[in-house]
Amino acid sequence: MKVYMEHGAARPVDPRVMDAMLPFFSEAYGNPASFHSNGFEALRAVNTARAQVASMIGAEAADIVFTSSATESNNLGILGSVQRYRKKGNRVVISEIEHISVINICKELTRMGLDVVYAPVDADGILKIDELRELVDDETILVSIMAANGEIGTIQPLKETVEIAHEHETLLHTDATAALGQIPLDISMGFDLITLSSNDLYGPKGVGALYIRNGLRLKPHMIGGGQEGGLRSGSENVPGIVGMGKASKIAMAEMPEESERLIGLRDELIKGILETNPESYLNGHPTKRLPNNANIRFSYIEGEALILSLDQLGIELSSGSACMAKTLEPSHVLRALGLKHEEAHGSLVFTLGKCNNEEHVDYVVKSMPGVVKRLRSMSPLTPKELM
Amino acid sequence: MKVYMEHGAARPVDPRVMDAMLPFFSEAYGNPASFHSNGFEALRAVNTARAQVASMIGAEAADIVFTSSATESNNLGILGSVQRYRKKGNRVVISEIEHISVINICKELTRMGLDVVYAPVDADGILKIDELRELVDDETILVSIMAANGEIGTIQPLKETVEIAHEHETLLHTDATAALGQIPLDISMGFDLITLSSNDLYGPKGVGALYIRNGLRLKPHMIGGGQEGGLRSGSENVPGIVGMGKASKIAMAEMPEESERLIGLRDELIKGILETNPESYLNGHPTKRLPNNANIRFSYIEGEALILSLDQLGIELSSGSACMAKTLEPSHVLRALGLKHEEAHGSLVFTLGKCNNEEHVDYVVKSMPGVVKRLRSMSPLTPKELM
Repeated sequence: MKVYMEHGAARPVDPRVMDAMLPFFSEAYGNPASFHSNGFEALRAVNTARAQVASMIGAEAADIVFTSSATESNNLGILGSVQRYRKKGNRVVISEIEHISVINICKELTRMGLDVVYAPVDADGILKIDELRELVDDETILVSIMAANGEIGTIQPLKETVEIAHEHETLLHTDATAALGQIPLDISMGFDLITLSSNDLYGPKGVGALYIRNGLRLKPHMIGGGQEGGLRSGSENVPGIVGMGKASKIAMAEMPEESERLIGLRDELIKGILETNPESYLNGHPTKRLPNNANIRFSYIEGEALILSLDQLGIELSSGSACMAKTLEPSHVLRALGLKHEEAHGSLVFTLGKCNNEEHVDYVVKSMPGVVKRLRSMSPLTPKELM
Repeated sequence: MKVYMEHGAARPVDPRVMDAMLPFFSEAYGNPASFHSNGFEALRAVNTARAQVASMIGAEAADIVFTSSATESNNLGILGSVQRYRKKGNRVVISEIEHISVINICKELTRMGLDVVYAPVDADGILKIDELRELVDDETILVSIMAANGEIGTIQPLKETVEIAHEHETLLHTDATAALGQIPLDISMGFDLITLSSNDLYGPKGVGALYIRNGLRLKPHMIGGGQEGGLRSGSENVPGIVGMGKASKIAMAEMPEESERLIGLRDELIKGILETNPESYLNGHPTKRLPNNANIRFSYIEGEALILSLDQLGIELSSGSACMAKTLEPSHVLRALGLKHEEAHGSLVFTLGKCNNEEHVDYVVKSMPGVVKRLRSMSPLTPKELM
């Protein structure tokens, strides 16, 4: 059996999305900037997709800029706003468990002389809102807090975060990559900037979007011919944009039912694994978490060894954020929970998706103890009673 | 009849490229950073594509970084090198007729305090090499000269440009977007950085690449998880990358024959139009031009009126660079040739491609005089003898 449980890293494109995209590769292949029928057709398709993406978060089409990825949206949203509104002050506040792209963009801001401060999370991975309140001041240009963490699944207190930002007239960006399509997000909550991902909605890779509140001005990140209202240059990836639009429409329609289904599978998975594997623990808050995420740590084992053993059984998952899997560094997210280096190393991230079902969960739950036991038996750290 | 002659703005994806890409949307959809079979398959595919793109220009796979577009490659290549090697001096030299993305990136460099100077071209659109020699000095960090201009088709004197750059130990970037797949380009000629486009090779939109000479270090433009050797963050657009690889392989194999065929069609088109339309002129050098490009200006007519009239006859083309078509500004390229505002406005860009044949050329040549005559009859500027 093949069981893919790494939807946080990559998802298959929905067949309905593929059908929507296909004509734009080889038939309606025009450049939306062209002044002829083929170009007009491409432009119409991009505009339709823009309205579809906007609708998902209650925005207007004009507030959506298409990019090449959530990473690019983070670059444009954060670098673009901080540089544009630098007169307001010098501070930028983010959480300790932001996605590595947000963290690294903020390291660049630090090099540029900005005062970037990191709001801590509690042992369950929930932003400490009182500490955030302390850190945000009137000189803060931007607060960037993710809607939910893709690795440990925790959903952040956005309502309180918005209140704090508004109190100080500070811009608020949220990276909604992991949350999108799983929990409701609406601009009426008070965001200025939202990073949106396509592949996380079963849309194609290589496309993303940024919601920009009407009236907000950004310094462009990608410089060139002035596409996307001058905010993002480069000829539009029409098939990709069409795919993201269609994926947004499907996600909006199917989210309520699918999220409920995933919560059922997720809870079954967590319960099954924790019950059958001694010294296994759930990382992240038990209920304030994404419908599709389970993050479980196993004492005395290396995550990479677990991953490779499970792959041999046809089970595909990850030991941390795929976006930095190659570094072999322990996850900054798990360490922010207060986990020790060796604890952080023995964690597995399960991110469920449309293609997963009860059978998959059963298979994973049944496969786990054998693998865990075998790997523990090879570790000098394992206590005798677990052998 | 439908005749699409705007291949410089957008091209259909080759069916063989589509076939190569398709499995990576919904089957082998893994993240190349993942540590399991699905991820390894994606990684292998990306590496194969990297070797295919490299091979097209005689480079090693390790010298290729994938981006989201030629525009992004220009951003990374120019901003990344100038910022990294700023100690060398303060000057950047480009030609007057670079693509709008290069021009606008260099305007940003000017705002950053760099001394950007523009090398002129002659009336045929060929870089004045002696003037370039005057402008490049030992304090020049980067010279960026396009391999060929996509709008007027002129092929630039790259050999002499390389010599000048080497003499001053200056980095040399070339935007090969328009030239790629039409004329041979090889890194042995002495380039440091080459911008490569996918769609111009009948690959998908939304992907591009940058060749970076081994040993050269760049400041990354897209900050994040450190993909592409840390040079370009964001989860890889695997289907797009696979498509660009396949398109490069096909282009390399078919270029000699296809270029010869296009030259035949192009010359027939130019001859046919110039012979049957009084006061029509070829823009750009008659022989030092891309196999697929004809740029013709018609006195006393607006380019946009021509475009729209021709579209009604099923003929799709452009009046300038599609990348800035929306601005309605006269082309900076045509004005660099010394053309007056009103002359530049009456130009048509024909960019031929695989799907064009003799029948198309005949149809365009036969359709032109009627349209030109009708539009001229409506213009108060037209001399009586042309009515």
